[in-house]
This record gives sequence, structure tokens and C-alpha cells, in this order.
Amino acid sequence: MAFTVTILGNSSAKPTPNAHPSAQVVNLNEQYYLVDAGEGVQQQLIRRGINPLRLRAVFISHLHGDHCFGLFPLIATLGLEGKRTPLDIYAPAPMGEILEYHRRYFWDDLPYEVKWHEVRTTEHQIIMENSTLEVWSIPLRHRVPTAGYHFKEKQPGLNVEKYKIEKYGLSIAEIVTAKRGEDVVRDGEVIANEELTYIPYKARSYAYLSDTNYSARAAERVKGVDLLYHETTYSERDAMIAKGRGHSTTHEAAKVAAKAEAKRLIIGHFSSRYKELQQLCDECREIFPETYIASEGTTFSIEQTR
Amino acid sequence: MAFTVTILGNSSAKPTPNAHPSAQVVNLNEQYYLVDAGEGVQQQLIRRGINPLRLRAVFISHLHGDHCFGLFPLIATLGLEGKRTPLDIYAPAPMGEILEYHRRYFWDDLPYEVKWHEVRTTEHQIIMENSTLEVWSIPLRHRVPTAGYHFKEKQPGLNVEKYKIEKYGLSIAEIVTAKRGEDVVRDGEVIANEELTYIPYKARSYAYLSDTNYSARAAERVKGVDLLYHETTYSERDAMIAKGRGHSTTHEAAKVAAKAEAKRLIIGHFSSRYKELQQLCDECREIFPETYIASEGTTFSIEQTR
Repeated sequence: MAFTVTILGNSSAKPTPNAHPSAQVVNLNEQYYLVDAGEGVQQQLIRRGINPLRLRAVFISHLHGDHCFGLFPLIATLGLEGKRTPLDIYAPAPMGEILEYHRRYFWDDLPYEVKWHEVRTTEHQIIMENSTLEVWSIPLRHRVPTAGYHFKEKQPGLNVEKYKIEKYGLSIAEIVTAKRGEDVVRDGEVIANEELTYIPYKARSYAYLSDTNYSARAAERVKGVDLLYHETTYSERDAMIAKGRGHSTTHEAAKVAAKAEAKRLIIGHFSSRYKELQQLCDECREIFPETYIASEGTTFSIEQTR
Repeated sequence: MAFTVTILGNSSAKPTPNAHPSAQVVNLNEQYYLVDAGEGVQQQLIRRGINPLRLRAVFISHLHGDHCFGLFPLIATLGLEGKRTPLDIYAPAPMGEILEYHRRYFWDDLPYEVKWHEVRTTEHQIIMENSTLEVWSIPLRHRVPTAGYHFKEKQPGLNVEKYKIEKYGLSIAEIVTAKRGEDVVRDGEVIANEELTYIPYKARSYAYLSDTNYSARAAERVKGVDLLYHETTYSERDAMIAKGRGHSTTHEAAKVAAKAEAKRLIIGHFSSRYKELQQLCDECREIFPETYIASEGTTFSIEQTR
């Protein structure tokens, strides 16, 4: 079961000739979730071979243009493409009003429903759930109300060891019982569940934290995350600018990763002033060695481990 | 004095991996005018080496997303870039309302003024004028109120032939008189203006007609145009679809060019169903041989002729 994050865009507010503003796609078992939607996101999806019709939901961190101006053209295109099922959009207020304005002026004949779900940016809570995934909101510290998103795979069900099936001659009914996590009881004999089953792999997780000042609390809330995206708008030498603008430095991003005991850190949302991104990555690695640049077009895969 | 048109985007509504929606830049003597602003236009400007701060005005043909969704991110970026002078936007109603709600949600701290000028899409009239240029609105026939734009260079002033200055020993004052178009009178002698002066080159013009059904009246209104852009969304074999959707076919575009006695026709806004664009160009050339594809990134130059 795949769990990947593909970077569609990764630059901060000012556009450059080739880099696109913030947008990512999370793919969990071929269910696609869009995380932020900077200008050009629909074209970036197509370039990466992802049909926009496959998106299950969209998560917007905050209502700055470089994180959401691509959403409105995407919604229009999905209409042209004949979408019929609702599109769920998770975003802070007043996204509902903004969508309503767009509906009035640009898509009064949309053939599907755009469903806005308000994300309360001061709350750490489950905002979406299905059979394989929970998504939690993470309060962040930016100039406007902003939420990070924590994608937590649900713990996969128990498997029964094949050789134990043979050893005990388990029936179908007994296998089902074991998979439910219960002991198998037959004629007074009790076979302990732990004797029969194993967890196929540990539930995996991805957290997206952008845009934000350093937040120790956010780190606590994504404790043990497998893959952490943290914005790194500024080099450590520009820490004063970062603080004033509600952004983070390399060292701050790395400290959050360390505090969260993340397995890997990916960084992005770099200010256009930096031409040499490896330097920013190196600064992070001083504190958190497992740091990687979230380059546009890159797909990060979270592997299954037992 | 340069008069060029650079194609920034040329596809119709549905996005493709590499083609961008409608946007062009008209450059008259290093004054830049944006014509339509599909998604991604600010990045397309930068890619073509045009600093968005240099734009003098923006002309929007109609309020479909593929012609204007790039305008709002562009306005936001110009704010980040520290623009101070007003940006003039010529567009049909209700663009004023749309800009106002964007102001409310996305750019309440913009450091410059966004000035909307309503274009009445049923009127053929001058909507902008400066020392070198007149821009006229051309009523078009689309599904929503739509205007084309006719960029008419003003007739450059008279020059005085150098050898006539010598021949008649003209004084500075007499040269100024001749340049004004008046005869030179000295001691009862009259030197006719035509004897001394010449028109350095004929005033040039460019017309942008998109999106529209065939309109003979539009052709009449751009009579003698040097360079004509006409949308060609459909091949002649899909004429029925074109008619119903407020678009034109290859032959219709070519007929408008012929009727207008245009010198050159450039075509675009092709439906994504056509993979082979040269075929569309060939269809136009059956009627109007001087037809060219308005490929993204191409600059068409209108040369001076006497």
C-alpha cells in the first residue's frame, strides 16, 4: 500500500521562472489528497501524471494567495471535465465566502458540489476520517490563521502467521476470530492471540507544517511522524526577518524535526532570495541529518516497517 | 520604435501539461500592455524576460477563468514587488466587484491602486489613449459579454527631408513650422509643406479578437489591421460545436482576416482535442494564406513601412 508525497510546488510568495508556489499531493493507497493549491496546481498535477478528477479532498493551510490561488481554476476545470461527485475542501474561514463569490461570478453552472469544511486553526483535532486515514489539524503561528495537517494512516488489521494456521489447523472462523484480535478458544484450549497474529506493518504518518514561526507545541503534536514537511523560508542568518514575517529558519525547522523525533525532514517554501538551496539543507543537517530538499517534482515514499 | 505581440499562453479552457491559457503582451515602444491573463501569466511574463512591474495596463476580453484567473495572483505579486503607481485594468463588468472581493480577502494592504475601467462590450469606442496609442473596444459574440481590443498606433509626426533643409536653408523655426504640417512662408515666398516633409512610417495596428462567433461587423471595425489575432477554437469539420459554444472555426477566422484586409492573421485558443495544430493553420490558409500559429513564446513584430 503506497504512501507517498509528491511536491508540485515549493516556492514562497514571489514567482520565479520555473518554480511553482506551494502544492503537494499525498497518495495513500491510490487515494489522492491535495495539500495547498498555489497558482498553476492543475497544470502541475497533469505534468506529474495525476488526473485532477482523482482528488478526494483538498486541504488549504491558510488563505494567502500563494497557497490557494490555484484552487479556483482547478474547481472550474473539474467542472469542464464533468465531475459529478462532491469535492471536499478543508480550509480556514472565510474560504466558504470566497468559494461563494467564485460560484457567483465564475461557476454558477458547476455540475458537482464544492463542500467546504471549516478548519479551526486553534484546534488540534481530527478533521477528516475514512477507513484508512485520519487527518488532524495542527495549529500554526503565522500572520493569518493557519493550520498544518497531519496525515495518519490507520493501524492496519492483524495478519495471522501462515505456519501457525497449519500448526494449529485453524478453521476459517478461527482465522477471522484471530484477525479481530481475540484469542481462539476450542474445547477448553485457549490459543493466545499474540501466538497467532502479527501487525503487518506500523501505521505511517506525514505532517505538513507551513507557514509558521517555530512552534514547540506543533512538534509535540506530530511526535513520531515518519515524514515531516516544515517550511524553511529563511537561512539562519536571516532569523530576524523570519520572526517578523511569521516564518521559520533552517535551524528552527530542524529543531522541530528533532523534537518531534521525525524520521525524515523535507524542507521548502524558500524565499526567492536564496539561489543555493543546498546551503539551506546543510544548515538543517547541522541539527537534523535526515533533511532533504522538497524539490518540485520529487516524490517521497514512506515505506512500510514492522 | 518596436510594436510587437508576444504570446504568453494560447490554449482554450482545459489545461494541458505545457500550454497555458490565454495571455499576450503588446509592446509599443517599450510600453507593455497585457491582453488577457490566464492562470500562470505572471510566471509566463518572467519566463519571457518581462518584468511585471513594467505593465502599463491590462485588458481582459471577458470573465471566463481561462482569460482572467492569472490576474489576481499577478496583482498580489505586484504588491510584494513594491509597486506604487496605479494599475489600470480594462474589463467588462462585474470585474469591479470581483476585484473588490479579492481586495477584501487577499490584498487589503496593497501598496498601489488597482483602477478598474469598465469596458462596455456592446460599444465600439476608444477606451484608452496616450501619446502613442489608442485602444478601441470591439464588440464580440460569445456566451458572456466579450470585447476584442484594437491597438492603433497614432500616426507619427512629419519629418523634414534633410536635403530640403540644405536646399532651402531652413531655420530651426521653419523646420518646426514644417513639422507641424504648415507651409513655410518667407518674404512672400511660400514653400508647400508637401515639398519639405514626409511621413516617417504608416501608423501600425494590432487587433485581438477572442472569444467569439464569426462577426462580419468586427472584421469591418478592424479594417486594414496589420496583425490580427483571431480565435480558432475549432476545425472547420467541427463547425456545429463552434457555433453552439460561441467560438469560431478556422475558415471563419480566415474569412474575418480576409474581410478586414489584414496583412497577417495569427490563430490560437485551440481546443485541446486537436493534437496537430498545423492542420488548423492549413485550413485557414485555404482562405487566407498569411496565417500563422500564435505559439506560446512567439513574438510577432509589426515592422514600419512607408
